[in-house]
Amino acid sequence: MSTTVNRQFRLAARPVGLPKRNDWNLVEEPLREPGDGEFLVRIEYISLDPAMRGWMNEGKSYVPPVGIGEVMRAYAGGEVVASRHPKFAVGEHVAGTFGVQEYARSNGKGITRVDTKLAALPVYLGALGMPGMTAYFGLLDVGAAQSGDTVVVSGAAGAVGSIVGQIAKIKGCRAVGIAGGAEKCRWLVDELGFDVAIDYKGEDVKAALKRHCPQGINVYFDNVGGDILDAALTQLAMHARIVVCGAISQYNTTAPVKGPSNYLALLVCRARMQGMVVFDYAARYADAAHEVAGWIAQGKLKTREDIVDGFETFPDALLKLFSGENTGKLVLQVT
Amino acid sequence: MSTTVNRQFRLAARPVGLPKRNDWNLVEEPLREPGDGEFLVRIEYISLDPAMRGWMNEGKSYVPPVGIGEVMRAYAGGEVVASRHPKFAVGEHVAGTFGVQEYARSNGKGITRVDTKLAALPVYLGALGMPGMTAYFGLLDVGAAQSGDTVVVSGAAGAVGSIVGQIAKIKGCRAVGIAGGAEKCRWLVDELGFDVAIDYKGEDVKAALKRHCPQGINVYFDNVGGDILDAALTQLAMHARIVVCGAISQYNTTAPVKGPSNYLALLVCRARMQGMVVFDYAARYADAAHEVAGWIAQGKLKTREDIVDGFETFPDALLKLFSGENTGKLVLQVT
Repeated sequence: MSTTVNRQFRLAARPVGLPKRNDWNLVEEPLREPGDGEFLVRIEYISLDPAMRGWMNEGKSYVPPVGIGEVMRAYAGGEVVASRHPKFAVGEHVAGTFGVQEYARSNGKGITRVDTKLAALPVYLGALGMPGMTAYFGLLDVGAAQSGDTVVVSGAAGAVGSIVGQIAKIKGCRAVGIAGGAEKCRWLVDELGFDVAIDYKGEDVKAALKRHCPQGINVYFDNVGGDILDAALTQLAMHARIVVCGAISQYNTTAPVKGPSNYLALLVCRARMQGMVVFDYAARYADAAHEVAGWIAQGKLKTREDIVDGFETFPDALLKLFSGENTGKLVLQVT
Repeated sequence: MSTTVNRQFRLAARPVGLPKRNDWNLVEEPLREPGDGEFLVRIEYISLDPAMRGWMNEGKSYVPPVGIGEVMRAYAGGEVVASRHPKFAVGEHVAGTFGVQEYARSNGKGITRVDTKLAALPVYLGALGMPGMTAYFGLLDVGAAQSGDTVVVSGAAGAVGSIVGQIAKIKGCRAVGIAGGAEKCRWLVDELGFDVAIDYKGEDVKAALKRHCPQGINVYFDNVGGDILDAALTQLAMHARIVVCGAISQYNTTAPVKGPSNYLALLVCRARMQGMVVFDYAARYADAAHEVAGWIAQGKLKTREDIVDGFETFPDALLKLFSGENTGKLVLQVT
């Protein structure tokens, strides 16, 4: 180890609205050697995810909030640089919830070993990591997508949405993406093979869904909530499934969350709306990642990482998620 | 047949807000003899249901709207008084979607034969009719209630809600009802055996649910929507099921429907919210009604009909549903 310092972003305040730079403190602490049964990871890439905004809030959720003064929670990947753990050797690459810092110590619990010969490390934060697993289990388990279904996904050019649409195609579904801007929409159709992409910034989403889903929507995979969820509810097919994966349009609002006015469509269409948290599928990650890796190797599934350079840019880089600037998986490169 | 006239309520206008007397015309038309393969029913009781409000609106729903000028749709029961149908004889009692009128002709399609020795005719409009079937399939199929679950039902003193809570108890669940007023709440606990009843007019529903459901809500059977649905969402147990049966608080609003602000609890709790329409279970009505009739005979399930007298009072009688004046199944007695 050539350095003796570990830089960390620690939560300084609970944000109101969009997170600001001074909602975190950038601190330096002395780098400590791993204890017995531990190893030390030099973090190379940090995953930036919409869920991180929720972790900054007080109150009950699917995980405890990040405490004030604690290192900001984040999924990340890096290289083992020191080890007193029998199963992790120096030089190996690993991914886990290491936090927004340059080095992390770990006892190995919840850590995934990464084969950088199979795919680059950032891919393990995207298609082969949490976003890919979220797409896989959300679409196939919660959404119960079947061949022939019309699958609509919002946030389609994001880390999760871009995988959802591609898995839908692999499974014989019709894939309709909703994204912001002509460039993202072109990417979805021309590069990823979506059947249709709807630009919510440029067209009326309800009218476009009606036009592009003449048989109705069988699976709506929702990453955004708000008005787009309400538009999708008007176009459900009978027995439709709505996967509630996220609601990025609502994460930074200081007003009450906008509930879906059209939720009674669930009754009319005998449809269901179901929430998911990817952690519940941890026991099946390995098999799913193996399948996704196969699709990548066969060229059936394309991955894209939007890599921002510089550890200290973390607060600004995170905001790209909420302004819709990223395409594909947003990743912060540490070194 | 001693009369030659059939009185009918026909839809005159689509209501804005609460239905008014002049949204219907009370008309008399000559009574026609049944044709070949038809029979004539003298209607004795007409079921008054919250769903009728929805049938008066224009637009796509789970059944077509009642057309302007058409007889108002209603479930009803009566006696066969003339028949040219091989399977229905004069003197038999039947129930079906006969409409708000004194006489109805039928070809027998969708008609249930009624044994008035087993239960009085109004019971076939309540516990043994659509409300009972809605409660049965909503709780057990859509809600998947299991022994030990905490079941919460809104509109608990109504036709559906009062049966939901009792079936919940029969199946070994804890039954918590939400109703308006101390008298209804007393009835639910003292007469029907609910574990708890929450008076939404007298107490804070969210706080009461928190107090009375310390393990969270496993099944929330929603008849009302609005603020009470939002309160229930704050108290879900993991993997909870919300049955969307109705939203009576929203049926007469002239503002947009209030969507559930707290719907992201579905994500946090990996819960589902699913709509139902009882007609989908028609093939299983007979078996379910047989089981419910058995519970009634054993004294395990109590029925209560709130009977309003006088065909011509229909428009006012219907409003009792929306002001919360009825307890149990609201029925209009024709004769």
